[in-house]
Amino acid sequence: MKYEVIHECKQSGARVGKLTTDHGEIITPCFMPVGTKATVKGLNPEEVKDTNAKILLSNTYHLHLRPGEDIVEKAGGLHKFMNWDGAILTDSGGFQVFSLSKLRKITDEGVAFQSHIDGSRHFFSPTKSIEIQRALGADIVMAFDECTEIGIDHAKARLAMERTLKWLDECSKVKLKKHQVLFPIVQGNIFADLREESLKRTIPYVKCGIAIGGLSVGETAEEMYKMLDVMKPLYPKEMPRYLMGVGSADYIVESVLRGIDMFDCVLATRIARNGTAMIPEGYMTVRNAPYREDFTPIDKNCDCYACKNFTRAYIRHLLKAEEILGGRLLSIHNIRYLQKLTEDMREAIMQDRYLDFVKDFRKKYTGKN
Amino acid sequence: MKYEVIHECKQSGARVGKLTTDHGEIITPCFMPVGTKATVKGLNPEEVKDTNAKILLSNTYHLHLRPGEDIVEKAGGLHKFMNWDGAILTDSGGFQVFSLSKLRKITDEGVAFQSHIDGSRHFFSPTKSIEIQRALGADIVMAFDECTEIGIDHAKARLAMERTLKWLDECSKVKLKKHQVLFPIVQGNIFADLREESLKRTIPYVKCGIAIGGLSVGETAEEMYKMLDVMKPLYPKEMPRYLMGVGSADYIVESVLRGIDMFDCVLATRIARNGTAMIPEGYMTVRNAPYREDFTPIDKNCDCYACKNFTRAYIRHLLKAEEILGGRLLSIHNIRYLQKLTEDMREAIMQDRYLDFVKDFRKKYTGKN
Repeated sequence: MKYEVIHECKQSGARVGKLTTDHGEIITPCFMPVGTKATVKGLNPEEVKDTNAKILLSNTYHLHLRPGEDIVEKAGGLHKFMNWDGAILTDSGGFQVFSLSKLRKITDEGVAFQSHIDGSRHFFSPTKSIEIQRALGADIVMAFDECTEIGIDHAKARLAMERTLKWLDECSKVKLKKHQVLFPIVQGNIFADLREESLKRTIPYVKCGIAIGGLSVGETAEEMYKMLDVMKPLYPKEMPRYLMGVGSADYIVESVLRGIDMFDCVLATRIARNGTAMIPEGYMTVRNAPYREDFTPIDKNCDCYACKNFTRAYIRHLLKAEEILGGRLLSIHNIRYLQKLTEDMREAIMQDRYLDFVKDFRKKYTGKN
Repeated sequence: MKYEVIHECKQSGARVGKLTTDHGEIITPCFMPVGTKATVKGLNPEEVKDTNAKILLSNTYHLHLRPGEDIVEKAGGLHKFMNWDGAILTDSGGFQVFSLSKLRKITDEGVAFQSHIDGSRHFFSPTKSIEIQRALGADIVMAFDECTEIGIDHAKARLAMERTLKWLDECSKVKLKKHQVLFPIVQGNIFADLREESLKRTIPYVKCGIAIGGLSVGETAEEMYKMLDVMKPLYPKEMPRYLMGVGSADYIVESVLRGIDMFDCVLATRIARNGTAMIPEGYMTVRNAPYREDFTPIDKNCDCYACKNFTRAYIRHLLKAEEILGGRLLSIHNIRYLQKLTEDMREAIMQDRYLDFVKDFRKKYTGKN
């Protein structure tokens, strides 16, 4: 796997790059749809591909519990299991162990937890997480890190950062399959000095890309942007930077201005299932009454399957009637919206006008988050 | 709209016919997938089309309550609303008024009922049902009938039959759109004399096709087949016969032997969402443990999208993880299974070997229903 910067915008410093994997090339900035349990909720692989997504994210914690990495490996790996021939990134399970599992106990060795499904007992060490990811066979494997919540003090954030660095060292010793590469994760909560230190001490482990974890978890946009600004001058050269769990249009646009190349988030598909579409002006609650007799597409300028074939009135009907197709059409639309957004961003960067792009975007976008 | 018999099987008397509508030709015997609320649950129109379905069924009761036939008519009719350019049949709401609504009160004038959604009060007269269906714009419009349950006595069954005939007369007086045709419905519960009488007195109203209602609602297969046998010699010539609500493979195969041409049922999609696949041997509970590591398709001889692209192990995983794609893939498979079944039946009829076909089918089919 390799990454090269194709162009740096003269106006903004934002960049377009190319990540080459055994499962295709990914032009950055890019958005990765989330297929938590080896499926982007409600969609088949062709629909995901039709949005122009080149890489998707799947989930170590969930796939370990069900169906188990042994099944996925026997199937020939995650790509084959889910019939997706694009690239895949698996997160390490670190975040889910903290957010979903019951009765977790964290030590320097790892995390003991109970499954949120059946209460069964499990233990994830950094080594174990990487071994599971090796079996799953994703192209990009994420280091096992300790996520912290916003509001903890500096000492606690430092402790988690140190543990994440210790775990990274252990993760880095696990041999991966030939097509796989490990992305380390920078932590440090919203403390500038910790972010700086975490990044600097992480760099020796970076082989092909680096991730920023623990942001967009409740802090303000300004706090997040400040952290990105602190880190921006310190990243290793010619390596993609992946801001984990960020996927609203405004955050993507603003973060690219601050040096980020890759994004993932469940937001696009989660709000879709709840009846909300992403549009250039922000969000459209398609369930709402004004769309009852609106026979225009969600976005007349959108080229997605939903916008080309169905009206707001029909999609609203599906949502109100709790018909699956409603959330499915909006999921397609929202993912396509984010793909198109990154396509437009890349074009603006290539043409050295990304600052103008951001200005136009901000003007249109309501900022409703 | 017109119908012609293309061939009558010399071995069995079963027939292949062609129904010509403004929205395409339908070769019978045919199976119509059910899109109750203007969507075949979970599928988009292209997926339904890919199964080779040429006509689908939608629901007057549901669409009247939500979104309302006014919206559908303003959208340009049901075909345009749901983006389906094949043929559509709408049932009259008769069955749903009885099975779903609350506090219904039936008189000779029609049925007063409360919506199962919000308790709002409504009244369906025969005229009203047809007017709604005219607005919806389906190609085939069903008469408003009184459905009865198995177990009632002869007198009660006669009463419902008489009412259905009175209502049919009223239905027949409502002017439809140019592309629409009314299918009357034969009732009579499981009383041979009533079925015979109902059919005979219905014939004068038949313009292009006739339906058999009130079967497959709890009676035994033998009781149903007996009713079909009673009616078989009495149907009007060169008219398709539609057996309502029947859609298991064995019932379809056996009913064609007994003169039936058209079928619809939610079974294929309902059991799909519960994790069951239709196969030549009967039913396969894909959720079950034996398929955990089974990396073969649901049916290696099936040409559906699910069987061409995914394994039993993956679909089982999706079902266990409650991922929508699981039910969706099985819905595609089950509908395609029934379409392929009718294709094979038509071929056997054309080649005058339908009795052999039925024999082979029975041998393979477990009869698990």
